[in-house]
Amino acid sequence: MEAGHNENIDTIEESGENDVLLPQINQPEQIKSLSVEKLTSLAAEIRQFLIEKLSVTGGHLASNLGVVELTLALHYCYDSPRDKFIFDVGHQAYVHKILTGRMDQFDTLRKYKGLCGFVKRSESEHDVWEAGHSSTSLSAAMGMALARDLKGENNKVIAVIGDGALTGGMAFEALNHIGHEQKDLMVVLNDNEMSIAPNVGAMHNYLSKIRSDRHYLRAKEELEIMLKKIPAIGGMLAKTGSRLKESLKYMMVPGVLFEELGLTYLGPVDGHDLQKLIETFKQADNVRGPVFVHVLTTKGKGYKPAEADSHKWHGISPYKIESGKELKSVGNPMYTDVFSKTLIELGEKDPRIVAVTPAMPKGSGLIEFSEKFPSRMIDVGIAEQHAATMCAALAMEGMKPVFAVYSTFMQRAYDQIVHDICRHNANVMFAIDRAGFVGADGETHQGVFDVAFLRHVPNLVLMMPKDENELRHMMKTALEYDDGPIAYRYPRINGLGVPLDEKLVSIPIGKWETVREGEGYAVLAAGPMVQVALDAAEQLKREGINLRVVNARFLKPLDEDMLLELANSHTNMIVLEEACEAGSLGSAVLEFYASKHIFDARVSLMGVPDRFILHGSVKDQREDTGLTSEAVCVEIKKLMSLHSFGMGRAGYTS
Amino acid sequence: MEAGHNENIDTIEESGENDVLLPQINQPEQIKSLSVEKLTSLAAEIRQFLIEKLSVTGGHLASNLGVVELTLALHYCYDSPRDKFIFDVGHQAYVHKILTGRMDQFDTLRKYKGLCGFVKRSESEHDVWEAGHSSTSLSAAMGMALARDLKGENNKVIAVIGDGALTGGMAFEALNHIGHEQKDLMVVLNDNEMSIAPNVGAMHNYLSKIRSDRHYLRAKEELEIMLKKIPAIGGMLAKTGSRLKESLKYMMVPGVLFEELGLTYLGPVDGHDLQKLIETFKQADNVRGPVFVHVLTTKGKGYKPAEADSHKWHGISPYKIESGKELKSVGNPMYTDVFSKTLIELGEKDPRIVAVTPAMPKGSGLIEFSEKFPSRMIDVGIAEQHAATMCAALAMEGMKPVFAVYSTFMQRAYDQIVHDICRHNANVMFAIDRAGFVGADGETHQGVFDVAFLRHVPNLVLMMPKDENELRHMMKTALEYDDGPIAYRYPRINGLGVPLDEKLVSIPIGKWETVREGEGYAVLAAGPMVQVALDAAEQLKREGINLRVVNARFLKPLDEDMLLELANSHTNMIVLEEACEAGSLGSAVLEFYASKHIFDARVSLMGVPDRFILHGSVKDQREDTGLTSEAVCVEIKKLMSLHSFGMGRAGYTS
Repeated sequence: MEAGHNENIDTIEESGENDVLLPQINQPEQIKSLSVEKLTSLAAEIRQFLIEKLSVTGGHLASNLGVVELTLALHYCYDSPRDKFIFDVGHQAYVHKILTGRMDQFDTLRKYKGLCGFVKRSESEHDVWEAGHSSTSLSAAMGMALARDLKGENNKVIAVIGDGALTGGMAFEALNHIGHEQKDLMVVLNDNEMSIAPNVGAMHNYLSKIRSDRHYLRAKEELEIMLKKIPAIGGMLAKTGSRLKESLKYMMVPGVLFEELGLTYLGPVDGHDLQKLIETFKQADNVRGPVFVHVLTTKGKGYKPAEADSHKWHGISPYKIESGKELKSVGNPMYTDVFSKTLIELGEKDPRIVAVTPAMPKGSGLIEFSEKFPSRMIDVGIAEQHAATMCAALAMEGMKPVFAVYSTFMQRAYDQIVHDICRHNANVMFAIDRAGFVGADGETHQGVFDVAFLRHVPNLVLMMPKDENELRHMMKTALEYDDGPIAYRYPRINGLGVPLDEKLVSIPIGKWETVREGEGYAVLAAGPMVQVALDAAEQLKREGINLRVVNARFLKPLDEDMLLELANSHTNMIVLEEACEAGSLGSAVLEFYASKHIFDARVSLMGVPDRFILHGSVKDQREDTGLTSEAVCVEIKKLMSLHSFGMGRAGYTS
Repeated sequence: MEAGHNENIDTIEESGENDVLLPQINQPEQIKSLSVEKLTSLAAEIRQFLIEKLSVTGGHLASNLGVVELTLALHYCYDSPRDKFIFDVGHQAYVHKILTGRMDQFDTLRKYKGLCGFVKRSESEHDVWEAGHSSTSLSAAMGMALARDLKGENNKVIAVIGDGALTGGMAFEALNHIGHEQKDLMVVLNDNEMSIAPNVGAMHNYLSKIRSDRHYLRAKEELEIMLKKIPAIGGMLAKTGSRLKESLKYMMVPGVLFEELGLTYLGPVDGHDLQKLIETFKQADNVRGPVFVHVLTTKGKGYKPAEADSHKWHGISPYKIESGKELKSVGNPMYTDVFSKTLIELGEKDPRIVAVTPAMPKGSGLIEFSEKFPSRMIDVGIAEQHAATMCAALAMEGMKPVFAVYSTFMQRAYDQIVHDICRHNANVMFAIDRAGFVGADGETHQGVFDVAFLRHVPNLVLMMPKDENELRHMMKTALEYDDGPIAYRYPRINGLGVPLDEKLVSIPIGKWETVREGEGYAVLAAGPMVQVALDAAEQLKREGINLRVVNARFLKPLDEDMLLELANSHTNMIVLEEACEAGSLGSAVLEFYASKHIFDARVSLMGVPDRFILHGSVKDQREDTGLTSEAVCVEIKKLMSLHSFGMGRAGYTS
């Protein structure tokens, strides 16, 4: 709790009431000398800064407006980076970034090589834990507290977690361990009654009960008076007396559930009252063992449009400050929109369809479906594991569940996909959204691993459409397929704007299509890469090269007939995919030829290289990884030059 | 609750007190007509049956002895398969198997093509949910209850979950959803104060408190008397009165934590008292919405050796009934034993080493380490996700965590490995046990996917030793490696009995070794497959073929120099691995050649085919999948024949 003092810290000049404080802040220690009144002014300046900056760049506005005072109070009371601040899903760390010397980088927020939208260790020593997936902060805190104690150090460890993230299974695993080990650490629950979507779940109901019951202190006083009136209490058995005492504790302590798990509960405290926050942290410092501070905040606080619809304002495009109107460029419909519309069409005809989402009803395009079929849209909260296994059971009982999930969050359900869905060969449909590059959310959110982590699982069929119209037919294909799990993956980007067929037809399982005839050279492309290959073909045509383009729409099973035909015609092939090169479609093609003892098929791979891909635009990310039509042309020419020299064995290139 | 009646049900003849009931049972409905006294006799017969049968076959004795009465009571009160019995981690379903017509198959328990040790849908219509991994039952129950209601049916859905499995994160995700949705379903907590290892965690402490407080009924009576003596209760504010009432509920209901999550709590009830169990289930049937029945059982009940050490008797080899002595064949030390010993050696010199286990301290060989370094062995409970992320944080704070985990359970931590460990490039060491085939546990436990789900994750180094001595050097290699996450995987089987080097040395990262020189043909083998390849080489030698055998000990990164040399010398290669063929080492080799534009390397793959591999011995499983020295010889000869015909392109084989 001691405010650190360092002679190198710039002093904030306070000459009058209307001083602007924010531009003077470049280190968090500077705020320790401020009065609560000044901190309150600073909070207002930070809000204004965020509202202005994000109106240009877009970003996670609502959640950051909600934690202005909380972040100030933490930096006021504790010494980062000595004390470890761990932000769960680090998109609510903008205020922390502002206070730790990164204010002048906000113009580059979420842009390529610019300020990351999440906590980022490479940006600052104050960023000690990175996350884009939820519910990891408590495990991180436990690890840091254990390490601290093993090393004999004495810093604080503080996890800030939202009420949505608290429902993720791994957060409970961590709580269970934290309560048991009794290490000193602090869990700050940033309770804004929201995950990204309105929160669901029993934990949410429980927290709501605490929130709504602000009179507990009054009740406590009355209870004490009442207890004095009980004449017979001395005559009871000691056991009952002790039970009564404990029982009465429940009456005074709203967070009994956390107390039962071994944490000391403090709160709820108004998360926009700096004085109360600071007092509560002081109180927490006197607690031995793990302490749970329940802070109530309002998402979007201080900006009316965001307060009114914090769901919409969770992640926002640039907007007009006055009206709150988003400045979205009008484009082709997104794949998600087409999924959304098509699912309703299918759902109207087939009552077996049940849509399941792990807390992403809006992002996954399920709002309209849920309005139309309220009992058939199930939001399980942030709970990918539970969602997947529940889908298996739904399928085994004759339903046709659609597990709508972002590629990156599907990683959480890998074991359940293997063990519960594919091993049972259950008729679960997967709608894998945000497959491939995702742009500004960056490396924690890239959907580049799902092909590699799904392809080796027995029984699964995996598809990817070349455009939004084909997505519709794939959804029909999946619905009519009754032989086990089947998945279609589609990107975050806008579709190509192609006409949408009214009538939906099943695509034969494992059949690719040649979308452009050619000879000698072929690109086997998946999803949006088909268009990239077609663009390359146009460029190569000018040079007299006739590139064949194949829509490799089944990533599993492969079109073996076409692969044999390609090998037999001595075609040079490039497998082009926005998925990690290791283990994805290209790998599958190579394995197929090896299994057939075809040892001279000429297959080249173009996929995502073996590293994490940073934030930026999808265009930046494709350029960074060489997944562009220009790069395809370069590769074709390289293959041509190898061919003309008769190379292959000794003449390898790197 | 109505006992079903069916004229085709065999009637049990009850002619006297000493009748043997068990041999007459072939359908669960038969027991519905029995008295509680007869059921109690039947329970004793079942125990005797299990103790005798398992003394020959081995199996999960202790947990099944613990649920004899519970299973009888469930079948007595409910109508399987109309009512859905979902056993979490289905290894405690032996009694269920006995009652559902599979008694005469127990001689084949856990043998190849014999009775499965877990619930198995293909065995019986009474087996509605399969699991080998824990904590899936609540999600399955939720899915089945949702499907039931959507279909307008009215069967019961009953999940039986152990107290260990209850701490798995996905069980909490499901509880959170169940409490929210308020569907009719029953959760039976089989609380034996044990997961496989003695239970840890705050939830365990909480359940213990309930267990130890059996006087709650007495307390309730006293409380009621006391309440009548409170004079002022009418004068209080309504709010306070209502709080008081709720508060007093906590005093009477021990399971407040579950009540807070929205389930009606009943119990705790003695799980070996049939009368009480039946009464409690009757009570549960009157509850609307989800009900949580807390049943206290004793693992190993009725067999003294198992009661005394239920940890050891969780999964047991054949044993002598009288003494309880295991009839283990003496063999070479297991890889786990060598890991265990070596970790202590390393731990003595390096205080940064911290071992982390998700509830498998014994299976993973960490008991001795924990005795030697109590603060440096951390059992987090069944919580693979939390364990992995906590390891990342430990590493970031300068420790050297060893995450000791079975390959199959590591699947649960896939996302955390990607997002928290590898993306942070944290120095976490993975000791992946039970990699490859696991034998009798079968398809839910096979460790055949980890290479494929780890190889595509950036920053990870992945090794596998050819023998137990090399494992020791790999552990040293991992400890000295400071560039990010590094894993060594090793099989469940016994080692080769090779001498163990005293002095440990680091192996250069990415360097393979040729363990047998040869020409023209080479096997690139991983782990125990090196020995299989050497055996094949001996067989081929007789036929004048000189097979080169390479110990491909790094699965990532590859030994690129050796691969180039092999291609340049026109060597025919087989990649041999006990891992799924899709996406594992063979795939990596093919990708490497493609990346170098080496289009005529002759690489053939021998791995685990694209299906789930059933239980049996490891030998059975290798024969089933063609991972034997004989199969290698056959493949080499096929390659020779292709070669002599100059085939490759058109002359593919299948």
